[in-house]
Amino acid sequence: MDECVFCRMVAGEIPVVKVYEDGAVLAFLDIGPVSDGHTVVIPKAHCTNAHECEPETLAKVGPCLGRIAGAVARAMNADGYNILCNNGRAAGQVVEHLHFHIIPRKAGDGVFRQWPAYKYEEGRISEIAEKIRKTLM
Amino acid sequence: MDECVFCRMVAGEIPVVKVYEDGAVLAFLDIGPVSDGHTVVIPKAHCTNAHECEPETLAKVGPCLGRIAGAVARAMNADGYNILCNNGRAAGQVVEHLHFHIIPRKAGDGVFRQWPAYKYEEGRISEIAEKIRKTLM
Ligand SMILES: [Zn+2]
Ligand SMILES: [Zn+2]
Repeated sequence: MDECVFCRMVAGEIPVVKVYEDGAVLAFLDIGPVSDGHTVVIPKAHCTNAHECEPETLAKVGPCLGRIAGAVARAMNADGYNILCNNGRAAGQVVEHLHFHIIPRKAGDGVFRQWPAYKYEEGRISEIAEKIRKTLM
Repeated sequence: MDECVFCRMVAGEIPVVKVYEDGAVLAFLDIGPVSDGHTVVIPKAHCTNAHECEPETLAKVGPCLGRIAGAVARAMNADGYNILCNNGRAAGQVVEHLHFHIIPRKAGDGVFRQWPAYKYEEGRISEIAEKIRKTLM
Protein backbone atom coordinates (compact mmCIF):
# COMPACT_ATOMS: atom_id res chain seq x y z
CA MET A 1 0.00 0.00 0.00
CA ASP A 2 2.42 2.63 -1.26
CA GLU A 3 -0.02 5.46 -1.03
CA CYS A 4 -1.40 4.72 2.42
CA VAL A 5 -0.39 7.60 4.68
CA PHE A 6 -0.31 5.42 7.80
CA CYS A 7 1.82 2.73 6.11
CA ARG A 8 4.21 5.49 5.12
CA MET A 9 4.31 6.65 8.75
CA VAL A 10 5.07 3.08 9.86
CA ALA A 11 7.85 2.93 7.23
CA GLY A 12 9.32 6.21 8.53
CA GLU A 13 8.64 8.03 5.25
CA ILE A 14 6.31 10.53 6.89
CA PRO A 15 7.24 11.93 10.32
CA VAL A 16 4.99 11.30 13.31
CA VAL A 17 4.94 12.50 16.89
CA LYS A 18 5.25 9.03 18.35
CA VAL A 19 3.98 8.07 21.79
CA TYR A 20 4.32 4.28 21.58
CA GLU A 21 5.73 1.62 19.28
CA ASP A 22 6.20 -2.12 19.40
CA GLY A 23 6.52 -4.83 16.74
CA ALA A 24 2.85 -4.74 15.80
CA VAL A 25 1.49 -1.37 16.90
CA LEU A 26 2.30 2.33 16.43
CA ALA A 27 0.68 5.19 18.38
CA PHE A 28 1.11 8.88 17.62
CA LEU A 29 -0.55 12.21 18.34
CA ASP A 30 -3.24 13.34 15.91
CA ILE A 31 -2.11 16.64 14.39
CA GLY A 32 -5.73 17.73 14.11
CA PRO A 33 -6.84 16.81 17.64
CA VAL A 34 -10.36 17.15 19.02
CA SER A 35 -8.82 17.42 22.50
CA ASP A 36 -5.24 17.82 23.77
CA GLY A 37 -3.48 14.45 23.80
CA HIS A 38 -5.76 12.94 21.10
CA THR A 39 -3.82 9.84 20.10
CA VAL A 40 -4.13 7.49 17.12
CA VAL A 41 -3.32 3.80 17.57
CA ILE A 42 -2.74 1.65 14.48
CA PRO A 43 -1.61 -1.87 13.67
CA LYS A 44 1.57 -1.70 11.60
CA ALA A 45 0.25 -4.28 9.17
CA HIS A 46 -2.07 -2.62 6.70
CA CYS A 47 -5.76 -3.42 6.85
CA THR A 48 -8.61 -1.16 5.89
CA ASN A 49 -10.96 -1.71 8.78
CA ALA A 50 -11.70 -3.80 11.86
CA HIS A 51 -13.61 -6.60 10.18
CA GLU A 52 -10.87 -7.16 7.60
CA CYS A 53 -8.10 -7.14 10.19
CA GLU A 54 -6.42 -10.42 11.15
CA PRO A 55 -7.65 -11.68 14.55
CA GLU A 56 -4.01 -12.04 15.66
CA THR A 57 -3.45 -8.36 14.93
CA LEU A 58 -6.57 -7.28 16.83
CA ALA A 59 -5.40 -9.44 19.75
CA LYS A 60 -2.26 -7.29 19.86
CA VAL A 61 -4.03 -3.97 19.36
CA GLY A 62 -6.58 -4.59 22.15
CA PRO A 63 -4.17 -4.59 25.11
CA CYS A 64 -2.27 -1.60 23.63
CA LEU A 65 -5.49 0.40 23.58
CA GLY A 66 -6.00 -0.11 27.30
CA ARG A 67 -2.42 0.62 28.22
CA ILE A 68 -2.02 3.68 25.99
CA ALA A 69 -5.44 5.08 26.93
CA GLY A 70 -4.50 4.85 30.60
CA ALA A 71 -1.26 6.76 30.00
CA VAL A 72 -2.91 9.39 27.79
CA ALA A 73 -5.65 9.99 30.37
CA ARG A 74 -3.16 10.21 33.25
CA ALA A 75 -0.74 12.46 31.36
CA MET A 76 -3.54 14.82 30.34
CA ASN A 77 -5.29 14.78 33.74
CA ALA A 78 -8.40 13.68 31.88
CA ASP A 79 -11.69 12.79 33.59
CA GLY A 80 -12.32 10.10 30.98
CA TYR A 81 -11.66 9.17 27.36
CA ASN A 82 -13.33 7.79 24.28
CA ILE A 83 -11.83 5.03 22.16
CA LEU A 84 -13.30 5.46 18.69
CA CYS A 85 -12.74 3.51 15.50
CA ASN A 86 -14.54 4.75 12.40
CA ASN A 87 -14.93 2.17 9.66
CA GLY A 88 -15.98 3.31 6.19
CA ARG A 89 -16.59 6.84 4.92
CA ALA A 90 -20.20 6.71 6.08
CA ALA A 91 -18.82 6.32 9.61
CA GLY A 92 -16.30 9.16 9.30
CA GLN A 93 -13.22 7.16 8.33
CA VAL A 94 -10.79 9.35 6.38
CA VAL A 95 -7.54 7.33 6.22
CA GLU A 96 -8.27 3.83 4.99
CA HIS A 97 -5.91 2.04 7.36
CA LEU A 98 -7.53 0.74 10.55
CA HIS A 99 -7.02 3.19 13.41
CA PHE A 100 -8.37 3.82 16.89
CA HIS A 101 -8.68 7.33 18.27
CA ILE A 102 -8.05 7.80 21.98
CA ILE A 103 -9.71 11.07 22.92
CA PRO A 104 -9.11 12.45 26.44
CA ARG A 105 -12.17 14.10 27.92
CA LYS A 106 -12.88 16.64 30.66
CA ALA A 107 -16.26 16.86 32.39
CA GLY A 108 -18.51 19.18 30.41
CA ASP A 109 -16.06 19.73 27.52
CA GLY A 110 -18.81 19.19 24.94
CA VAL A 111 -16.45 17.39 22.53
CA PHE A 112 -19.04 14.73 21.72
CA ARG A 113 -22.62 15.36 22.69
CA GLN A 114 -24.69 13.48 20.12
CA TRP A 115 -26.35 10.25 21.26
CA PRO A 116 -29.61 10.00 19.32
CA ALA A 117 -31.00 6.92 21.08
CA TYR A 118 -34.49 5.63 20.30
CA LYS A 119 -36.56 2.51 20.98
CA TYR A 120 -37.23 -0.42 18.64
CA GLU A 121 -40.80 -1.16 17.63
CA GLU A 122 -42.28 -4.35 19.11
CA GLY A 123 -40.59 -7.47 17.76
CA ARG A 124 -37.96 -5.64 15.71
CA ILE A 125 -35.06 -6.28 18.10
CA SER A 126 -35.51 -10.07 17.87
CA GLU A 127 -35.59 -9.96 14.06
CA ILE A 128 -32.39 -7.95 13.95
CA ALA A 129 -30.61 -10.18 16.47
CA GLU A 130 -31.58 -13.25 14.44
CA LYS A 131 -30.16 -11.68 11.26
CA ILE A 132 -26.87 -10.85 12.99
CA ARG A 133 -26.59 -14.30 14.60
CA LYS A 134 -27.11 -15.94 11.18
CA THR A 135 -24.48 -13.72 9.62
CA LEU A 136 -22.04 -14.62 12.40
CA MET A 137 -22.44 -18.36 11.82
CA MET B 1 -20.04 -6.76 41.49
CA ASP B 2 -23.59 -7.70 42.49
CA GLU B 3 -25.09 -4.47 41.34
CA CYS B 4 -23.41 -4.23 37.95
CA VAL B 5 -26.11 -4.54 35.29
CA PHE B 6 -23.75 -6.09 32.75
CA CYS B 7 -22.42 -8.66 35.26
CA ARG B 8 -26.03 -9.58 35.96
CA MET B 9 -26.62 -10.01 32.22
CA VAL B 10 -23.56 -12.27 32.02
CA ALA B 11 -24.92 -14.27 34.97
CA GLY B 12 -28.29 -14.64 33.22
CA GLU B 13 -30.11 -12.65 35.91
CA ILE B 14 -31.19 -9.95 33.47
CA PRO B 15 -32.37 -11.00 29.99
CA VAL B 16 -30.45 -9.84 26.91
CA VAL B 17 -31.00 -10.11 23.18
CA LYS B 18 -27.79 -11.99 22.56
CA VAL B 19 -25.94 -11.94 19.26
CA TYR B 20 -22.70 -13.62 20.32
CA GLU B 21 -21.18 -15.40 23.30
CA ASP B 22 -17.98 -17.26 24.06
CA GLY B 23 -16.04 -18.00 27.24
CA ALA B 24 -14.76 -14.46 27.63
CA VAL B 25 -17.10 -12.21 25.64
CA LEU B 26 -20.81 -11.43 25.42
CA ALA B 27 -22.46 -9.33 22.71
CA PHE B 28 -26.08 -8.15 22.73
CA LEU B 29 -28.30 -5.57 21.09
CA ASP B 30 -28.57 -2.20 22.81
CA ILE B 31 -32.23 -1.66 23.74
CA GLY B 32 -31.76 2.09 23.29
CA PRO B 33 -29.98 1.99 19.91
CA VAL B 34 -28.67 5.00 18.01
CA SER B 35 -29.05 2.95 14.81
CA ASP B 36 -30.69 -0.39 13.98
CA GLY B 37 -28.37 -3.24 14.91
CA HIS B 38 -26.46 -1.19 17.52
CA THR B 39 -24.58 -3.89 19.44
CA VAL B 40 -22.76 -3.85 22.77
CA VAL B 41 -19.69 -6.07 23.22
CA ILE B 42 -18.41 -6.74 26.75
CA PRO B 43 -15.82 -8.90 28.45
CA LYS B 44 -17.56 -11.27 30.85
CA ALA B 45 -15.03 -10.52 33.56
CA HIS B 46 -15.93 -7.28 35.29
CA CYS B 47 -13.69 -4.30 34.78
CA THR B 48 -14.70 -0.68 34.82
CA ASN B 49 -12.84 0.62 31.81
CA ALA B 50 -10.22 -0.15 29.17
CA HIS B 51 -7.14 0.88 31.14
CA GLU B 52 -8.12 -1.25 34.14
CA CYS B 53 -8.91 -4.29 32.03
CA GLU B 54 -6.51 -7.25 32.03
CA PRO B 55 -4.38 -7.33 28.84
CA GLU B 56 -5.39 -10.98 28.34
CA THR B 57 -9.04 -9.95 28.35
CA LEU B 58 -8.48 -7.15 25.85
CA ALA B 59 -6.60 -9.61 23.66
CA LYS B 60 -9.80 -11.67 23.51
CA VAL B 61 -12.15 -8.72 23.05
CA GLY B 62 -10.15 -7.25 20.12
CA PRO B 63 -10.72 -10.06 17.60
CA CYS B 64 -14.39 -10.34 18.67
CA LEU B 65 -14.90 -6.67 17.84
CA GLY B 66 -13.71 -7.19 14.28
CA ARG B 67 -15.71 -10.34 13.73
CA ILE B 68 -18.95 -9.08 15.30
CA ALA B 69 -18.68 -5.67 13.61
CA GLY B 70 -18.35 -7.39 10.23
CA ALA B 71 -21.47 -9.47 10.86
CA VAL B 72 -23.47 -6.52 12.21
CA ALA B 73 -22.54 -4.37 9.20
CA ARG B 74 -23.36 -7.13 6.72
CA ALA B 75 -26.63 -8.09 8.41
CA MET B 76 -27.76 -4.45 8.50
CA ASN B 77 -26.54 -3.61 4.99
CA ALA B 78 -24.53 -0.82 6.58
CA ASP B 79 -22.16 1.45 4.65
CA GLY B 80 -19.84 1.58 7.66
CA TYR B 81 -19.77 1.40 11.44
CA ASN B 82 -18.27 3.03 14.50
CA ILE B 83 -16.69 1.10 17.34
CA LEU B 84 -16.95 3.32 20.40
CA CYS B 85 -15.87 2.77 23.96
CA ASN B 86 -16.69 5.51 26.45
CA ASN B 87 -14.59 5.48 29.60
CA GLY B 88 -15.67 7.59 32.56
CA ARG B 89 -18.77 9.73 32.97
CA ALA B 90 -17.03 12.69 31.37
CA ALA B 91 -16.76 10.56 28.23
CA GLY B 92 -20.38 9.42 28.27
CA GLN B 93 -19.97 6.09 30.07
CA VAL B 94 -23.20 5.13 31.82
CA VAL B 95 -22.74 1.49 32.85
CA GLU B 96 -19.45 1.09 34.69
CA HIS B 97 -18.47 -2.22 33.11
CA LEU B 98 -16.19 -1.92 30.08
CA HIS B 99 -18.22 -2.07 26.85
CA PHE B 100 -17.74 -1.36 23.18
CA HIS B 101 -20.60 -0.04 21.05
CA ILE B 102 -20.76 -1.23 17.46
CA ILE B 103 -22.90 1.29 15.62
CA PRO B 104 -23.90 0.51 12.01
CA ARG B 105 -23.93 3.59 9.79
CA LYS B 106 -25.54 4.59 6.50
CA ALA B 107 -24.12 7.34 4.31
CA GLY B 108 -25.56 10.68 5.41
CA ASP B 109 -27.46 9.29 8.42
CA GLY B 110 -26.21 12.11 10.64
CA VAL B 111 -25.91 9.82 13.69
CA PHE B 112 -22.56 11.34 14.70
CA ARG B 113 -21.53 14.62 13.12
CA GLN B 114 -19.35 16.31 15.73
CA TRP B 115 -15.60 16.34 15.06
CA PRO B 116 -14.30 19.61 16.54
CA ALA B 117 -10.70 19.34 15.30
CA TYR B 118 -8.23 22.17 15.84
CA LYS B 119 -4.48 22.74 15.58
CA TYR B 120 -1.90 22.72 18.38
CA GLU B 121 0.08 25.87 19.01
CA GLU B 122 3.77 25.71 18.05
CA GLY B 123 5.71 23.29 20.26
CA ARG B 124 2.71 22.04 22.21
CA ILE B 125 2.43 18.67 20.44
CA SER B 126 6.00 17.71 21.40
CA GLU B 127 5.41 18.64 25.05
CA ILE B 128 2.27 16.51 25.18
CA ALA B 129 3.92 13.54 23.45
CA GLU B 130 6.78 13.70 25.93
CA LYS B 131 4.35 13.68 28.87
CA ILE B 132 2.51 10.65 27.49
CA ARG B 133 5.70 8.77 26.71
CA LYS B 134 6.94 9.34 30.27
CA THR B 135 3.65 8.14 31.70
CA LEU B 136 3.85 5.02 29.54
CA MET B 137 7.30 4.09 30.83
ZN1 LIG C 1 -1.78 1.32 5.45
ZN1 LIG D 1 -19.76 -5.81 35.70
